[in-house]
Amino acid sequence: MSLTVLIAPSGFKESLSVKDVAEAIARGVRRAAPHAVILTAPMVDGGEGTTEALIAATGGRIVPATVTGPVGNAVPSFWGIMGGDGPRTAVIEMAAAAGLSLVPRDRRDPTLTTSRGVGELILQALDHGAERILIGCGDSGINDGGAGMARALGARLLDEQGDDLPEGGGALERLARIDMTGLDPRLAGVQIDAAVNWHNMLLGPRGVARVFGPQKGATPDQVECLDRGMIRYAEAILAATGKDVGPMPGAGASGGLGAGLIAFAGADLHPRFQIMLDYLDFDHLLGRADLVITAEGALDGQSPFGKVPCEVARRAAALGIPTVALAGTIGKGARQTYEHGIGAYASIMRRPCSLQKAIGGGAKLLRNAAENTMRMLLVGQRLADRHRA
Amino acid sequence: MSLTVLIAPSGFKESLSVKDVAEAIARGVRRAAPHAVILTAPMVDGGEGTTEALIAATGGRIVPATVTGPVGNAVPSFWGIMGGDGPRTAVIEMAAAAGLSLVPRDRRDPTLTTSRGVGELILQALDHGAERILIGCGDSGINDGGAGMARALGARLLDEQGDDLPEGGGALERLARIDMTGLDPRLAGVQIDAAVNWHNMLLGPRGVARVFGPQKGATPDQVECLDRGMIRYAEAILAATGKDVGPMPGAGASGGLGAGLIAFAGADLHPRFQIMLDYLDFDHLLGRADLVITAEGALDGQSPFGKVPCEVARRAAALGIPTVALAGTIGKGARQTYEHGIGAYASIMRRPCSLQKAIGGGAKLLRNAAENTMRMLLVGQRLADRHRA
Repeated sequence: MSLTVLIAPSGFKESLSVKDVAEAIARGVRRAAPHAVILTAPMVDGGEGTTEALIAATGGRIVPATVTGPVGNAVPSFWGIMGGDGPRTAVIEMAAAAGLSLVPRDRRDPTLTTSRGVGELILQALDHGAERILIGCGDSGINDGGAGMARALGARLLDEQGDDLPEGGGALERLARIDMTGLDPRLAGVQIDAAVNWHNMLLGPRGVARVFGPQKGATPDQVECLDRGMIRYAEAILAATGKDVGPMPGAGASGGLGAGLIAFAGADLHPRFQIMLDYLDFDHLLGRADLVITAEGALDGQSPFGKVPCEVARRAAALGIPTVALAGTIGKGARQTYEHGIGAYASIMRRPCSLQKAIGGGAKLLRNAAENTMRMLLVGQRLADRHRA
Repeated sequence: MSLTVLIAPSGFKESLSVKDVAEAIARGVRRAAPHAVILTAPMVDGGEGTTEALIAATGGRIVPATVTGPVGNAVPSFWGIMGGDGPRTAVIEMAAAAGLSLVPRDRRDPTLTTSRGVGELILQALDHGAERILIGCGDSGINDGGAGMARALGARLLDEQGDDLPEGGGALERLARIDMTGLDPRLAGVQIDAAVNWHNMLLGPRGVARVFGPQKGATPDQVECLDRGMIRYAEAILAATGKDVGPMPGAGASGGLGAGLIAFAGADLHPRFQIMLDYLDFDHLLGRADLVITAEGALDGQSPFGKVPCEVARRAAALGIPTVALAGTIGKGARQTYEHGIGAYASIMRRPCSLQKAIGGGAKLLRNAAENTMRMLLVGQRLADRHRA
């Protein structure tokens, strides 16, 4: 009987995309176990590359689109339709419509940038009959709380005089009232899930404006303005929808888009890797697998706290499937991962060498490590056979 | 049923003794598999540390001795009596009586240094009733072809005038005749095996004087003198014993001691690790083992050519026991070891780091690698169980 291996790695930060990682591992596994059946579930964090990875993993397709970019001009964008059985599922990464990389360096002013393009992608997905939409949050260039998206979906954000506010998070401190009457009625009939960093808060000292505003180009004064705007925004959302987004985990994700998704799109927010595992139908894949191989740039004492290897391993362990992890660096506290479903781990390093050299040869190191690990597992299988003989 | 693991590593050159290596691996294995039965067979190359390792592995004992050192003065030395059943077995490492480390730096003149102390240790072993003697060659400070040893054992090396030659390889070019009549008769009743580097030749361009003379302090002129001496010596041995040591593999080991051992001690020379495996009763240990873990500083394309991991793995494979190898460096061509019984290998490296740092933390790296490897093997065992379930 042939072995079925489920490859569910993260990308290696600043070194290898998740696609490259998964391919390298697959090549190594095949070298050691040519007859193994290989399944892949690339684990993405919701940011850039999310759509591509999910489409590739499920045999779906990319849909090109043109949307309003974060600084207001039309930009080429895209979303995806996932393959496979089940409900017609769209994938949108917010960074494809309002990502920081779409904001020219000389226009990085998060009091002005808008998430309108995200709303336009949602409308396109609805036009295509999507029954379920996954929205990946990460790598954003905005701080408007999803106000731009809300407008694209048909809501109105009004000032004291009843006039529409201009685009951008800077205007939100003048927000008086939200008018939901024009909201696209199709939103009520679709399940929208957002993959967010669960620790991104909307308000306060750890709120989105203070933590991420400066990275997006905000001056200290602008940070204060944006934070005041978010407070007003949360109050207006509560008044218009009854939803108190202020304290909700993940509401601050992607410049507060998390809050807007809850309020206007009726979205459910989820810790990013957990919802990825659901959309990848990971439990179904696990049902076919004998073994999971996961990977991340580093495995250490932080890994149990929301990093890919332990998220994957916990799911696998719940179904009795062993997981092994590959990592560039096995760091301090890595042993703690044993408590979270990792059965064994191995570094991809093969000799003393510099970080730079290791990064340069990363794909080959990973392929070789996967081969060696697979071989080690096969030796272990032989041990069991000996014991039974 | 508990797993029995046979740990059969080499030392890590300039970093960890074979004892340290074996202990570090054992600690790691115990962490992952607390109930595993652990056997150890430390693999030594015949040089310094050989006696201690074999004594430790078999529960034998060291016998202190005082002998004539390589520069003629009395030096503290030792030999060992191996533990275990079977014939009464002595272990002698030539370096303990004629090693380079016993030659003061200002007296490194291999035309004068002598192997006499080696003969004295052999006599002591005979006095103790040894039925079998293993002589480890390596790390020598002499180039006398074992002439000093021959004298200690009762032979006479004579010049044209019938006078005894002085000690040292430099005098051998005046050797006319060897008188074997005084040789200790007990030598005929004992099995003597020598562990040698099989590639060490006695004569010619790859002969002992040319290859090793300079390391031992010989000037170019002295190298020529020593090489002429070895030629004369081989001729005289042929005349006195009928044995043509000139072309014999390993005859050049330890400054030509290999030749002397053949001629005067009736010794059989053996590739070093093969005879070590025999004296360690390795096949018997394998009969109890489910798995072999071997290790060396580097695993690469040279490993199949007489290095510990492949020597060990070939024996194990012949009995159907899987072997895995740990190494500081997995180098170019390491895949070739798969053809020689290595089922899988792993580096002890856990992150990009310098050679110096890796060496400094070697024991801990090795222990962790052994633990991770053992864990990987246990995951493999689970895979087999799943397949059977």
